Amino acid sequence: MKGGQSLSALRARRLGVVAPGAAFVFLRSDCGVCRSEGFDARAQVEIHHKGRSVTATLFHVISDILESDEAGLSEAAWQQLGLEQGDVVTVTHAPPLASFSIVRRRVFGGRIDDEGAREVIADVVAQQYSDIHLAAFLTDCSATPLDEPEMIALTRAMVETGDRLHWNQAPIVDKHCVGGLPGNRTTPIIVSIVAAFGLTMPKTSSRGITSPAGTADVMETLAPVNLSLTAMRRVVEREGGCIVWGGSVHLAPSDDILIRVSRALDFDAQGPMVASVLSKKIAAGSTHVVIDIPVGPSVKVRSEKAAASLATSLASVAQAFGVRTRIIKTDGRQPVGRGVGPALEARDVVAVLRGEPDAPQDLRDRAVTLAGAVLELAGAVEAGKGTKTAREVLDDGRAWKKFLRIAEAQGGLREPPVAPHTRAVTASTDGLVAAIDCRKLARVAKLAGAPGAPAAGAEIHKRIGDPVTMGEPLLTLHAETPGELDYAIAFLLGEPDIFMLTTP
Amino acid sequence: MKGGQSLSALRARRLGVVAPGAAFVFLRSDCGVCRSEGFDARAQVEIHHKGRSVTATLFHVISDILESDEAGLSEAAWQQLGLEQGDVVTVTHAPPLASFSIVRRRVFGGRIDDEGAREVIADVVAQQYSDIHLAAFLTDCSATPLDEPEMIALTRAMVETGDRLHWNQAPIVDKHCVGGLPGNRTTPIIVSIVAAFGLTMPKTSSRGITSPAGTADVMETLAPVNLSLTAMRRVVEREGGCIVWGGSVHLAPSDDILIRVSRALDFDAQGPMVASVLSKKIAAGSTHVVIDIPVGPSVKVRSEKAAASLATSLASVAQAFGVRTRIIKTDGRQPVGRGVGPALEARDVVAVLRGEPDAPQDLRDRAVTLAGAVLELAGAVEAGKGTKTAREVLDDGRAWKKFLRIAEAQGGLREPPVAPHTRAVTASTDGLVAAIDCRKLARVAKLAGAPGAPAAGAEIHKRIGDPVTMGEPLLTLHAETPGELDYAIAFLLGEPDIFMLTTP
Repeated sequence: MKGGQSLSALRARRLGVVAPGAAFVFLRSDCGVCRSEGFDARAQVEIHHKGRSVTATLFHVISDILESDEAGLSEAAWQQLGLEQGDVVTVTHAPPLASFSIVRRRVFGGRIDDEGAREVIADVVAQQYSDIHLAAFLTDCSATPLDEPEMIALTRAMVETGDRLHWNQAPIVDKHCVGGLPGNRTTPIIVSIVAAFGLTMPKTSSRGITSPAGTADVMETLAPVNLSLTAMRRVVEREGGCIVWGGSVHLAPSDDILIRVSRALDFDAQGPMVASVLSKKIAAGSTHVVIDIPVGPSVKVRSEKAAASLATSLASVAQAFGVRTRIIKTDGRQPVGRGVGPALEARDVVAVLRGEPDAPQDLRDRAVTLAGAVLELAGAVEAGKGTKTAREVLDDGRAWKKFLRIAEAQGGLREPPVAPHTRAVTASTDGLVAAIDCRKLARVAKLAGAPGAPAAGAEIHKRIGDPVTMGEPLLTLHAETPGELDYAIAFLLGEPDIFMLTTP
Repeated sequence: MKGGQSLSALRARRLGVVAPGAAFVFLRSDCGVCRSEGFDARAQVEIHHKGRSVTATLFHVISDILESDEAGLSEAAWQQLGLEQGDVVTVTHAPPLASFSIVRRRVFGGRIDDEGAREVIADVVAQQYSDIHLAAFLTDCSATPLDEPEMIALTRAMVETGDRLHWNQAPIVDKHCVGGLPGNRTTPIIVSIVAAFGLTMPKTSSRGITSPAGTADVMETLAPVNLSLTAMRRVVEREGGCIVWGGSVHLAPSDDILIRVSRALDFDAQGPMVASVLSKKIAAGSTHVVIDIPVGPSVKVRSEKAAASLATSLASVAQAFGVRTRIIKTDGRQPVGRGVGPALEARDVVAVLRGEPDAPQDLRDRAVTLAGAVLELAGAVEAGKGTKTAREVLDDGRAWKKFLRIAEAQGGLREPPVAPHTRAVTASTDGLVAAIDCRKLARVAKLAGAPGAPAAGAEIHKRIGDPVTMGEPLLTLHAETPGELDYAIAFLLGEPDIFMLTTP
């Protein structure tokens, strides 16, 4: 074995290849270690340097971009090994991925127990799972939904693989929306109301998974969200609330790895979703959580039955961890507010918080209802008085003041960017808006660049029931590059049914 | 759109990166097209050159291995576009993978119809599916097995996406084994017997999927198997039979793409497996097919019930295409013959064909039974006379003569390679062999390098029921490199239960 080790020593070369979430190594196919170890192209290998190691996918190189005693490393591999130019690494076969046999058994009818979930999630977080393994796991959890004990096991495993927050006060409140409804950006408003009322709401939010914006993307156009755990705690201790990106504080980190693959699959698996939602709340130390489930024909939850099943799962898994929940089903038939995309949604949020006369009423109503539910669930106001109290805190400017202080504490208020390229999409006939396809709307906003391009997205000009005359704008696309604008327009030409019009 | 096109023109650079089955493109993250098109790292893009195009996964490069007006292409991308040094390519967003919505619907309870199967398989063959998409498709087909109409649809789609063979004579016979039983290499013997008897058997075989050897890997150690369709036809017209690699004749080519991902998942999905088996037979023009299903606790088919379900699927899908089948369930409790791995299995095959006194009796018996079934199914001999006739053709040397002529016609007989590195694994106690774990045995043969390293694998010295004394060899590992031998030994140290011994 010693002989093999020295043969496998190679000079590390930083190739500058960027591929988030996975490590790659490039070796000359005629190098000694490829021949002696029998490494195939796309084999999983392990790279070692001074006690650290990383699992990487191997590519063979048959050109002179590498010397035969060099190992070309991607940025992820380079950084995880903490390498410097001139360092020597060894490359060996990756150990068999033992935990994947747990997934394999489940595909063929087995179940995942606590220990199994722990092994799978630990390997996911250690980036041992290739895209193929991750896709198989998520697909299986969709094709054969996780049962309650499995969801509890997965939630526990996700909590345990990351940091945890502990607070001296109680209750710690939180709120979550099972996404899929474009523009439903209530979180910054709710945090502002609830914190202004004196409760503690350390909110960690995600970035868009299969959607054109997550709350973290939206908030980032208004203030920094990549806060460390220490920085986040300082904000919450000072202001009673925050709105930060969950990924940067390392709570339940498996989530972000699964998100990348979910995005490519363009679907969410319910079990991992429940585990993922609740593990972040539990890791954040939350005791009382309100969950918004929008229901509509073209959002994530499409029927009352599906909403009921999800609500049951969320409530029972939360209960297993001692977390109190209130699940609120809301109207998910059409987008909320006017903007879809980080900066466009941020504008709507600010308009509601500032009480501007043309602020979107639907966004305001939803935020007040949910904030009211938080106040009631936490016992801060009597049952039945939540909505009224929340509205008062918003109307008298306390919420806006609180938002400004939170943004300041997170690093300073910013002006959301404005897209340099816009194009209006107009109605081709007269009619009444009968329906809006949220899925296609999200898709077009994503094609325009959201959430990666924060100014990109779509601005909605009409709502269900609105009369429309031919030539009138239905929506305006916003993009940061002409290529993305063209791409979104090209998609719209093939899918003209985002707005369904009927003759009045 | 024109402006976007010219911005996206880049000088093609052959990077010499080898990654079978998928194309990759490397672009400087600061290049014009990345900025104007908003390409993320690991985005799917389309590369165009003179009317050809290929879908590729994008990597960003932040070093000087590329100029900012260059596109670095992997070998697969370079070859599919037919590029030469100095050519210019354009890079655009890949169109949305429309057919994946069919897979997505199926994950959530939908079914695949004829048109859906055609779209999915066409995109798979065109290499539009990333590893994530392929893994999701195969996992879903395992978690929720395909029903009969779906298997028929998938089979038809697989037949239609490749070449087809048409023969002037009938019947065209064939034989298939649902793998998983190490060493079960009856095919070369059956083809030799059946062709010697005057029937036509144009056999195309696969390479090892999740196994340490496929028939094509084994035959390749004895004669060339990468024949073109024309060359294969010439062999069959002259000798009545052949044993060639199915992949090289482009019959049902989607199979080989799915195989790579199945291998990484280390499981086979029954529906795609049935479609894959039968589509090759139908595309090859077969009319009568005998199928061997070994049943045992550690092979692919583990119970009589699973065998019955598979047999029903195979028979009914075959019938839908007018192909007559006979399904034969065989003993799959232990490996067949002595060798596991391409060259080691080839030695057993030759020993049986030459009637050597120490030829493995079990391999001989199985081959004669299956060859007899082929003769009966095709109506070449009366029912009940098949086995006897097959045995005569083998015993009097006609089969061995036919094998030599076939090997000659395929390009000439070869001597199988011998591994330079071997190590015996001995019994740690006295006892009787109670069971042999075929799955672990296959795994250790693969770790030793099979089937990629043709001389690698395992040689079995004991069978179920054999007495063993402490220190006696149970198996000998063969490897082409010391690294692979060490790797296989390391696995054995952690998994000592390939042979289960009981006190006599």
